[in-house]
Amino acid sequence: MKLASLKQGRDGQLLLVSRDLQRAVSAADIAPTLQAALDQWHRLQPLLEARYQALNQGQLQQSFAFDPSTCHCPLPRAFHWADASAYVNHVELVRKARGAEMPASFWEEPLMYQGGSDTFIPPHDPIRLADEAWGIDLEGEVAVVTDDVPMGISAAQASHHILLVMLVNDVSLRNLIPAELAKGFGFYQSKPSSSFSPVAVTPDELGRHWRDGRVHLPLLCQVNDELLGCPDAGVDMTFNFFQLVAHAAKTRPLGSGTIIGSGTVSNRDSSVGSACLAEKRMLEILTTGQASTAFLRFGDRVRIEMLDTEGRSIFGALDQLVEAWQPDG
Amino acid sequence: MKLASLKQGRDGQLLLVSRDLQRAVSAADIAPTLQAALDQWHRLQPLLEARYQALNQGQLQQSFAFDPSTCHCPLPRAFHWADASAYVNHVELVRKARGAEMPASFWEEPLMYQGGSDTFIPPHDPIRLADEAWGIDLEGEVAVVTDDVPMGISAAQASHHILLVMLVNDVSLRNLIPAELAKGFGFYQSKPSSSFSPVAVTPDELGRHWRDGRVHLPLLCQVNDELLGCPDAGVDMTFNFFQLVAHAAKTRPLGSGTIIGSGTVSNRDSSVGSACLAEKRMLEILTTGQASTAFLRFGDRVRIEMLDTEGRSIFGALDQLVEAWQPDG
Repeated sequence: MKLASLKQGRDGQLLLVSRDLQRAVSAADIAPTLQAALDQWHRLQPLLEARYQALNQGQLQQSFAFDPSTCHCPLPRAFHWADASAYVNHVELVRKARGAEMPASFWEEPLMYQGGSDTFIPPHDPIRLADEAWGIDLEGEVAVVTDDVPMGISAAQASHHILLVMLVNDVSLRNLIPAELAKGFGFYQSKPSSSFSPVAVTPDELGRHWRDGRVHLPLLCQVNDELLGCPDAGVDMTFNFFQLVAHAAKTRPLGSGTIIGSGTVSNRDSSVGSACLAEKRMLEILTTGQASTAFLRFGDRVRIEMLDTEGRSIFGALDQLVEAWQPDG
Repeated sequence: MKLASLKQGRDGQLLLVSRDLQRAVSAADIAPTLQAALDQWHRLQPLLEARYQALNQGQLQQSFAFDPSTCHCPLPRAFHWADASAYVNHVELVRKARGAEMPASFWEEPLMYQGGSDTFIPPHDPIRLADEAWGIDLEGEVAVVTDDVPMGISAAQASHHILLVMLVNDVSLRNLIPAELAKGFGFYQSKPSSSFSPVAVTPDELGRHWRDGRVHLPLLCQVNDELLGCPDAGVDMTFNFFQLVAHAAKTRPLGSGTIIGSGTVSNRDSSVGSACLAEKRMLEILTTGQASTAFLRFGDRVRIEMLDTEGRSIFGALDQLVEAWQPDG
C-alpha cells in the first residue's frame, strides 16, 4: 500500500496513491489523516487495502492524477522522530572530517538522537534557512514508521511493529554541529526541520528488496541535477531497523506513528558516491588533502529518490530548493 | 485559565478546571483536545475564557468535582518537547557528581535536548521501569507551552508566544547517562517518558509570580512524603523562558503545542534542598565525602507541586509511584 498526505490543515488529508504513483484517491472517510490511520491501523488497514487494490485496478472514478507537489510529508508533524546513525561507515568518515575520534562501541550499539517533528518541510517545498554559513547539508536516509511498540521489546519482536517505509532528507547544519555536540546534549539547533518523501509505503511494496530489516536498493541523491551518490541502503547498514526500533524502545514505549531513521546511507565502496556533502568533502580531503565541494548554497536544488530494479520511483522524490529565509517571508 | 485533559482516547478530552481546582467542566465542544485548542488558540481562547469565568462563578450546572487522578498530562502526547538546563547551578553540580567539567560557555548559551513526547505518563499513574539499577531519578521542573513560533525570533518577541505553564517530572536514568552522553548524540535511553502536572495554566493565573519569563514560586518536591526540596523556580534561572524559546527557534519554527522545559529547578542556596536526587547526592558528597541517598526504588512515591503564597495548589500535584515494569503488564 502507498500513502500520502495532501496539504490541508496541519495534518494533511490522507491519500492512497497507486503503485505506479500516477493516480491518487482520498481516504479521508476511512481516516482523516495518516496519524489517525496509524492510531487505529489494525482496524483500518483492511479498509485502506481494499481501496488501494481498487485504485490500482483503475476502478475508482473519484481518483485523480497524483501530484507530489501538492503533498506534505506523509506525517506533516509527528509525535516522535528519532534518527539513528546506522551506517557506521558514515559516522567514522564524518568524525574524521571534524577531527573527532570514533569509539569502538559505535559498532556495537546504535547512535540515536531525537529530531524536531513539529514542523516538517513538505517534500517539494523550499528548505528555508537564515545563513549559508551554517554549512547546510542534505542527509539522504530511509525511515520506518511504527505502530505502538511496547517498552523493552526485542529486535525480533520489533520486526512486527514496522508499518511503513519512507525516505528522509535530514537537513543538517554542519558548521553548528561541533560546538553543539561539544556541549554534550546532542543535536538541536544543528538539525533544523527534516523532510520526507511524498509517499510512504508498506514494507510488502518493497518485495524482495525489504529483508533483514533493511531496504536493499540504491538511494539516489542529486544536487543541482548532478548525482551526488547512489549508495545501497541495504549495504553496510550496521544496525537494521529491527535493532533500531528495539534500541528506541529500551526504556519507554513508542507511540503509533513513531518515525525511526537510518541515518545517512553510506557504503564503504566510495565509488557509489555519498548521500550527504560532508561525506563527499571528507573523501576529497582523504584523496587530495582538501575539500573542493561546498555545502549547499541558496538556489541549490536537492533531489532524493529510490527506484526499483525497473527504474520506477517507489516513494516519489524529495525535490527541494534551498532558499534564504526572510522574517515573515 | 486552567486546563486539563481527562483520560480519553490518545489525546484526552479538554477540560476547564476552576481556579481552586475543585470543579471542572468539559470544553470538548469548543475543542476536543488541548492540542486542537492550541492549534486555533487565538480564535478559541475567548470561548474558553468565557466558560472558565462561568465555571469559577459556579454558574455551570454541568460542572463536576475535579479529580486529577482521572487526568492525563495536559498534552497526553506532543509534537515537540524540548528540555533545557536553565539552572546552570544544577548542571554544575550534576557534572561534578559524575566527575565531568563544565565549560564556561554554559553560562552564556542554553543547553537543550529533545525528549520523547509520544508516550507521556499521566500525573497520577505509576512510573514503570524495568531496572532499579538504571538509577531512577525525578527532575522537578517548570515548562511552558507555545503557539506557532516563527524561526529566528528574538527573546523579546518570544515572550508573546507562551500560552501555558505547567510542571514536569523529567524522569531520568542517572546510571545510563554517562555512557550515553559519551557517545556524543545526547540523551535518549537515559530519558524515559516524562510526566506533567494535571493542570496547565495561562501565565495570567500566576499574577505577579510570572515575571521576567520566570515563575517566582518554590517548587515542592517530595519523595515518600518527605521534603526533598523546595527551590524557588524564579531564583538562579540563568536563562528565562523567553530566551529558551528563542534558542529553540533559532534554526526552525516551532509548532503550536511545543513544550519547553526549564531543566531541574535548582538554587545556589542549598538549604532549600533539591528537585532531584542526583543533586542531593552531590551535596552529600561535597559535605561528607559520600552519597547516602539512594536513587528511587520500586515502591517509592514522588510528589511535585507548586503552591501560591496562600498555600493553594496552582497546577495540582504530580503524585506517582515508581514500579517495576513487567512485559505485557
